[in-house]
Amino acid sequence: MQPRELPLATLRGVCQVEFQNNVWTALLFLLALLLGGWQFAVFALIGAFVTTVTAWVLGVARDRITIGLEGFNGTLIGVAVALFFEVGWVALMLVIAASVLGAVVTAALTVLLAPYNVPALTAPFCVVTSLVMIGGPAFARVWDARLPPAPVSARPTAALTFTDVWQGLLNGIGQVFFQDKWYAGLVFLIGLLVASRVAAIAAVAGSAIGIIVAVILGAPATDIGAGLYGYNPVLTAIALAGVFVALTPHGVLYAVLGAIATVVVTAGVAALFRPVGGPALTWPFVLVTWTFLAAVPMFAKIRRPS
Amino acid sequence: MQPRELPLATLRGVCQVEFQNNVWTALLFLLALLLGGWQFAVFALIGAFVTTVTAWVLGVARDRITIGLEGFNGTLIGVAVALFFEVGWVALMLVIAASVLGAVVTAALTVLLAPYNVPALTAPFCVVTSLVMIGGPAFARVWDARLPPAPVSARPTAALTFTDVWQGLLNGIGQVFFQDKWYAGLVFLIGLLVASRVAAIAAVAGSAIGIIVAVILGAPATDIGAGLYGYNPVLTAIALAGVFVALTPHGVLYAVLGAIATVVVTAGVAALFRPVGGPALTWPFVLVTWTFLAAVPMFAKIRRPS
Amino acid sequence: MQPRELPLATLRGVCQVEFQNNVWTALLFLLALLLGGWQFAVFALIGAFVTTVTAWVLGVARDRITIGLEGFNGTLIGVAVALFFEVGWVALMLVIAASVLGAVVTAALTVLLAPYNVPALTAPFCVVTSLVMIGGPAFARVWDARLPPAPVSARPTAALTFTDVWQGLLNGIGQVFFQDKWYAGLVFLIGLLVASRVAAIAAVAGSAIGIIVAVILGAPATDIGAGLYGYNPVLTAIALAGVFVALTPHGVLYAVLGAIATVVVTAGVAALFRPVGGPALTWPFVLVTWTFLAAVPMFAKIRRPS
Repeated sequence: MQPRELPLATLRGVCQVEFQNNVWTALLFLLALLLGGWQFAVFALIGAFVTTVTAWVLGVARDRITIGLEGFNGTLIGVAVALFFEVGWVALMLVIAASVLGAVVTAALTVLLAPYNVPALTAPFCVVTSLVMIGGPAFARVWDARLPPAPVSARPTAALTFTDVWQGLLNGIGQVFFQDKWYAGLVFLIGLLVASRVAAIAAVAGSAIGIIVAVILGAPATDIGAGLYGYNPVLTAIALAGVFVALTPHGVLYAVLGAIATVVVTAGVAALFRPVGGPALTWPFVLVTWTFLAAVPMFAKIRRPS
Repeated sequence: MQPRELPLATLRGVCQVEFQNNVWTALLFLLALLLGGWQFAVFALIGAFVTTVTAWVLGVARDRITIGLEGFNGTLIGVAVALFFEVGWVALMLVIAASVLGAVVTAALTVLLAPYNVPALTAPFCVVTSLVMIGGPAFARVWDARLPPAPVSARPTAALTFTDVWQGLLNGIGQVFFQDKWYAGLVFLIGLLVASRVAAIAAVAGSAIGIIVAVILGAPATDIGAGLYGYNPVLTAIALAGVFVALTPHGVLYAVLGAIATVVVTAGVAALFRPVGGPALTWPFVLVTWTFLAAVPMFAKIRRPS
Repeated sequence: MQPRELPLATLRGVCQVEFQNNVWTALLFLLALLLGGWQFAVFALIGAFVTTVTAWVLGVARDRITIGLEGFNGTLIGVAVALFFEVGWVALMLVIAASVLGAVVTAALTVLLAPYNVPALTAPFCVVTSLVMIGGPAFARVWDARLPPAPVSARPTAALTFTDVWQGLLNGIGQVFFQDKWYAGLVFLIGLLVASRVAAIAAVAGSAIGIIVAVILGAPATDIGAGLYGYNPVLTAIALAGVFVALTPHGVLYAVLGAIATVVVTAGVAALFRPVGGPALTWPFVLVTWTFLAAVPMFAKIRRPS
């Protein structure tokens, strides 16, 4: 593999977060990140670049690198660092170090899960970012560079408004990249649509399932409006609807089931992390999708895409 | 597989909780649940039925379903929901949703553990029920339907009485199904005896080991009398004495060792769950039995039953 | 295998903690433990003996036992019990019971990790000791025999002194065996040097990386001086530099990367254990080394030693 292939591999890493391999999608995703703040786009690219280069230096197979499979965890690491830390040298060092480690974790999980034909998904991002957020307080230089936590909504809504619902629908898509502006979510959705109609429909359906299940179970309206119950089912729905499971009637049912399960797991993961102070990230998506993909060989009616 | 085979498969799911495949045992187990309250028996059957049907719809192999292997985790999910939530629509929805998810977790764990010839045991029940109890507080509609926690014994015993011991011995057997009345434990024991003398002896021995080890290590007498240190070693003892390990002298020693280890792990699991507020369930049995079964290939003196 | 081979196998178990198979190294390690207190050396031998005998009774292959691979987790279990509990009958029973269980956990992890060609490392020690320290408070007889926690340094240093640095360098090596006297660390280093120059250099480098990274990230100076950020990278560095990864330029880079990652994981593991009150032990080394070894097949530039 030639070094000049690295920039394109990095760019593809941005859209592989949602299992796409399309440069236009990547550019639209970057535009959506820019709407949230320049630092998100820049750190996403740095993260994707560093994981991709690390994989290349250590000798990962070319076909994995060029389609962006070594970059997407770095993308999310970069966005997370830009969200939780103030822009500066510490944040820059942090995203580089975390991305290098992320490349090794990607390789380890890929090997460990290979016998079961299950991919690493965004678990390397989750592992490394959880590590930074849970272990971080021990290191004064790291923790001093942290941004103050986002202010809690001043509106302690008892009832869900129509605005909560339609903004929540788009925010659920944007929150995959930690973005909470509805128009950013819209640009992400357009980006998905450019690459795959099925993925775009799955994303909307996943976000809707997140809202519906959260409402039925009685989750707080502000969390729903912010898309916090949506982004994990969005990823589960895209992953199970056609990407890793064949798009048959049983397969669609299976994806819906997975998206519903993800909403409940979101609350469980958040509760597990509360005593140690880490965010839930995309752990719920990872755990549910791993479970549903590992289960496939037992189910005659569910199969992998041919 | 024909739909008319589902009722019998469901019934067998009730006795497979303790690795038995005997309709009379299942009926005696249901009688024991009725002694605790009608809702335990009804929810156990609903849970077993839903996991069995889910497995059937998704195409699990017929030979697994008919002997009840797809039902026993649903049985325990049903009993747990009847214990922790008040009877009503929320509890009914909860047991159905949790059991559907339980069927998928059963398949996933079966595939993941297959290379090691280790069964899923009651882990799917533990995963799903822990999820409900840890994630539940996030959902007002779910958590409002929760029953108040059982009152703590008014008798803060310093010393263990003879009543604590003999009731604890039977309660240890009943607590496998969350039952804390000694006569319910007795009916469970008779049910076991109908299917397998070895299993019944192992159950009594497991419960006795739970009491003895807990007394030696200085656990609170009320916990011992309630059977809380007994039900996990009961399951470990049955599993390791003849079911998954050959009943040789070394094998019996191995089962005793496993039962002892389970008592200590019970305290460890309870402590791990305390910060997030979930019950220990049968996690100690699952973790110890997985460990002891995975280890078998290393030990020339221990072998699987032929 | 003959019973008369057990004493030498036990002795080799002491030096296998740091991947060495050399009787002189084992004797020097015992001397270093004696410098900390006779109970450390005695309990280390009891632990190593009990795990070795358990493995022998259960029929583990002779070639694993004679080179000490079944003893080193018992060695560390013994030292940990001598550190956390007062010398007496309870501590003696505890080290025996924990070591028997440790032998089974060793076998289980060896089987589970075999498909990936990853060794159990000190994970059995971590599992069993974490269990005792987390579950222990439930058992009055066990917990009453606990020693009071080590007094926190009276000197709340703001700045790192030269003494902190050079003592921290040696303490990082001694803390692998929970020893915090610099001259004990020196004897351990000499012991390593007797067996392998590469291992000794890796140990010093690992300890130095622990100090450097901890200083850069802003960890408390007293923790650094006590070697608390050093002992895990020491083990990672030895394991990755020549023992389980070939000593090529890329391999050395990989070992440095692993040692750096271990420092950060040390803080993460400590934070995870804080709510339940267990010490970090060598979990950071285990988790990072497992990850880095599992990843090897993906990296063409990194290979196993021939």
